[in-house]
Amino acid sequence: MESENVVIIGGVAAGTKAAAKARRENPDLKVTVLTRESYVSYAGCGLPYYIGDVIKEEKELVVKKPKDFLIDYDIEVITGIEALKIAPEEKTVTAKYLSDGAVREFKYDKLVLATGASPFIPPVKGKELGNIVTVRTLTEAFAIKKLFRERKIKKAVVVGGGMIGLEVAENLVHTGIKTTVVELAPHILPPFDQDAARYVEKYLKEKGVEILTGAAVKGFEANSRGEVGAVLVEDSRLEADLAVLSVGVRPNVELARECGIQIGPTGAIAVNSKMEASISNIYAVGDCAENTNLITGRTVWYPMGSTANKTGRVAGINLSGTQTKDRINGVLGTSIIKLFDLNAAKTGLSEREAKSAGYDVVTALVPAPDRAHYYPGSRDIITKLIADRNSRRVLGGQIFGEGVVDKPIDILATAITFGATVDQLAKLDLAYSPPFSTAMSSTIVSANVMLNKLAGKFVGISPLDLKEKMEKGAVLVDVRSTEEYFVRSIPGSINIPLRELASRAGEIDRNSEIILYCRVGLRSYMAFLKLKRMGFEKISMLEGGIIAYPFATE
Amino acid sequence: MESENVVIIGGVAAGTKAAAKARRENPDLKVTVLTRESYVSYAGCGLPYYIGDVIKEEKELVVKKPKDFLIDYDIEVITGIEALKIAPEEKTVTAKYLSDGAVREFKYDKLVLATGASPFIPPVKGKELGNIVTVRTLTEAFAIKKLFRERKIKKAVVVGGGMIGLEVAENLVHTGIKTTVVELAPHILPPFDQDAARYVEKYLKEKGVEILTGAAVKGFEANSRGEVGAVLVEDSRLEADLAVLSVGVRPNVELARECGIQIGPTGAIAVNSKMEASISNIYAVGDCAENTNLITGRTVWYPMGSTANKTGRVAGINLSGTQTKDRINGVLGTSIIKLFDLNAAKTGLSEREAKSAGYDVVTALVPAPDRAHYYPGSRDIITKLIADRNSRRVLGGQIFGEGVVDKPIDILATAITFGATVDQLAKLDLAYSPPFSTAMSSTIVSANVMLNKLAGKFVGISPLDLKEKMEKGAVLVDVRSTEEYFVRSIPGSINIPLRELASRAGEIDRNSEIILYCRVGLRSYMAFLKLKRMGFEKISMLEGGIIAYPFATE
Repeated sequence: MESENVVIIGGVAAGTKAAAKARRENPDLKVTVLTRESYVSYAGCGLPYYIGDVIKEEKELVVKKPKDFLIDYDIEVITGIEALKIAPEEKTVTAKYLSDGAVREFKYDKLVLATGASPFIPPVKGKELGNIVTVRTLTEAFAIKKLFRERKIKKAVVVGGGMIGLEVAENLVHTGIKTTVVELAPHILPPFDQDAARYVEKYLKEKGVEILTGAAVKGFEANSRGEVGAVLVEDSRLEADLAVLSVGVRPNVELARECGIQIGPTGAIAVNSKMEASISNIYAVGDCAENTNLITGRTVWYPMGSTANKTGRVAGINLSGTQTKDRINGVLGTSIIKLFDLNAAKTGLSEREAKSAGYDVVTALVPAPDRAHYYPGSRDIITKLIADRNSRRVLGGQIFGEGVVDKPIDILATAITFGATVDQLAKLDLAYSPPFSTAMSSTIVSANVMLNKLAGKFVGISPLDLKEKMEKGAVLVDVRSTEEYFVRSIPGSINIPLRELASRAGEIDRNSEIILYCRVGLRSYMAFLKLKRMGFEKISMLEGGIIAYPFATE
Repeated sequence: MESENVVIIGGVAAGTKAAAKARRENPDLKVTVLTRESYVSYAGCGLPYYIGDVIKEEKELVVKKPKDFLIDYDIEVITGIEALKIAPEEKTVTAKYLSDGAVREFKYDKLVLATGASPFIPPVKGKELGNIVTVRTLTEAFAIKKLFRERKIKKAVVVGGGMIGLEVAENLVHTGIKTTVVELAPHILPPFDQDAARYVEKYLKEKGVEILTGAAVKGFEANSRGEVGAVLVEDSRLEADLAVLSVGVRPNVELARECGIQIGPTGAIAVNSKMEASISNIYAVGDCAENTNLITGRTVWYPMGSTANKTGRVAGINLSGTQTKDRINGVLGTSIIKLFDLNAAKTGLSEREAKSAGYDVVTALVPAPDRAHYYPGSRDIITKLIADRNSRRVLGGQIFGEGVVDKPIDILATAITFGATVDQLAKLDLAYSPPFSTAMSSTIVSANVMLNKLAGKFVGISPLDLKEKMEKGAVLVDVRSTEEYFVRSIPGSINIPLRELASRAGEIDRNSEIILYCRVGLRSYMAFLKLKRMGFEKISMLEGGIIAYPFATE
């Protein structure tokens, strides 16, 4: 039998994964990877850390060189070549060498599109100026690092407050550059809910990152050298000798579109669960392909490294024809970010997404320590749990704080994958020992708080609604100790320690709406129960306590 | 309505959790906690760390004092009182004050047994000598710490190599004491499989802990002061001025047994999923009660702090009569231990347990980094995955190494709870960013390796079987680079780097059994595929590579 030709367009995560897996599955295949870039198989998600010198050496980011693929896997990797055209009838790819413009035709039996995504460049004046960069490829990261080494950059503006933008901003601050992040949406980290995003924003500001939200970039001004000198934001002008554009990416689908492959509603390439595109013998994987949301079943586009690797592997198995087809039924868009010492993660649907998908949404905002409070290194994390009131199914979660969040977000992601209810979440048998967890882990505590809420045992209000409630006359009562109150409290609150509540309840106007808060929510829950028993009616508690309060305290 | 009396016997984790939850559920209850001890609500799992000075202050271990329960929860806690008898007909508990011997009768409407477990004392000669201690209560921990402060202890023997014994041994070493662990079973950490346990043993020995396995303690010899002077182990004599007995615990069930409450097959109190004992209005929670294994449905006894808290909460809700009954359907026995910088965790069934439960067991032993290999702090961990060949269901896992293991074990525990198959495990959408994970996390990599194994793509052998195979003539081929081979290799192996395999395969005798290994298993898998293609038949690969090899290397 003549060996089949597998051609893969794109050589970062998904493309090289598909190539390597295809080779391991079937040594008879002839596998060729075509890439426009000079580097292949590099760690795209590591670029912000390379810029910030957390990762010192360029070579650490490059997993394999083209030569390694040839020697170790018998895979031919051709760099500096651009695919121009796919002819599905003839099963050919026409490509051009960038060095000399020579055109070559590649025959395929199976074709994998791993063309990735490219940064979106906002169509504003001055976007072509020098020192306006994107951080998507290794070549771009090298260029930025070179700028730093020349010590020319004093002030930077990062356009876009999503994950990559914030990671870059942190790493700019680490290298001593005054940095401002400008985000068009009402809050940074747009996929997160506002309560989580505001918390992160408050933290970043404390760390010296300037942040402007709900602010549009109108253009860029040049300095005398023709490089960027200022960024025009709304009506003001931010001086900058570097602008990083990080307003999002768009899937690279032109090749696919031009040959008639179906593009889906998200703008990425439509695929089935086997990663097959609409034309036979063609697969699409990684950031250029669509995904299915595991909860809603809706078509989504989550361009993530984790998904890229998985879809590349699925295509690699399926095109090799050696076993039962592999499938990926859906993803949750699980994502995580580290910013200074703060971690923030999200899985499943946000409150906003869940509401727009039609669920009767219930949420809980619950702080808890990440390990035994007495064990060195214990830190608080805050879990926002999102569930459906009717089915009691967990729909999503956001977890943030200086403690460990990757563990509980992965627990949630796993639970959501299997359709867990809040009740089931509360009974998980998770590993406990003081260095790792509390006896009732943060996951279980947050599920229990939501069970109390579902059972109507307390009325909670979001920190986002507090200010408006207080303006309408609500009384905010801090039930912590007087010592704690004097160290830090929410503006406008009065202090009646829980232990004095029975004797001092007369100080509270029964006709006002009363909002109780404490550090994390346990004492305010006790106070809620006490006041209820004393006949108070208009009482609620601030969810998340002062720990999760994302605005200024005093 | 007259208020109901709730009496709870036992005041550590499960007892105080049941009390506090009952109070929050129903403020009309009269709740009384009786405990023999002087302290309540303390962190039993923190005691080894207190002994080792990781936790400096006694007060950090005491969550709440009796007075706090009265003020904050309106719960009466009586310390220093021993329950003598339960009369289910009269609904009374008779108890005696340890201080003056006064006897008092307590009326109950609902009774909770949270009597815990006590260390098993092996019935050997000299067990009553001074400086032979157990580490179960706070009072005992205080006494040991006092011994250390007096700087009298130079050599210690820990009898029992289970989790608590090893934690204590580590903390003894931290305080400069020469420490030997003596374990009767063939390996330390008896609930773990041997491959994992041997790995931990090797690590502990490197850290200076002496370990004797398969060794029985025959008795204790006194020194001139009537304290322990030596421990008699098999035919030898280990000098010691401290002996810590940690050979396991037994549930405290005498009170229950005497009043006719059913004791289950494990020796603990039989309960249903609502934590109700066999006599009505009586609950049993925490370490004195039985559990159900979630996978096998069998009755088990897992005395753990995490389960204690959960069962206490279930009883607290159910006895309060305020809502739908709460249930706990089963547990997995998830557990974790930190020893120096090594972490080891287990969930679900071990290979041994799975076989004895009748499953057609398949395992995979898979090393992987805990975060991006280029991100600072990245460490390898080893996952042993255990699954059922027929249903492809994941049955259990053991994860160990110097990297993060609590996260992947909790992912596994969650997946197992929902009956995940290996296929589903491989497609989990887990959070990826370089500081937290690899794009294909260790969980997914281990599932993929097992999928390859289930599909018959390679033949793996356990490191435990290697020596025997080599004695029978198997050739062990290290396919790593020559540099790696010279740094560290498995005794008796020859080196043919993967890249030279095609040209040097002739050096290998085709008639011998050939075992391939590399660092983690990827290159040996490539080598396996190559040799197979070259017509070699008797080939296999060492699972886990040299990374997971639990015996001496050279």
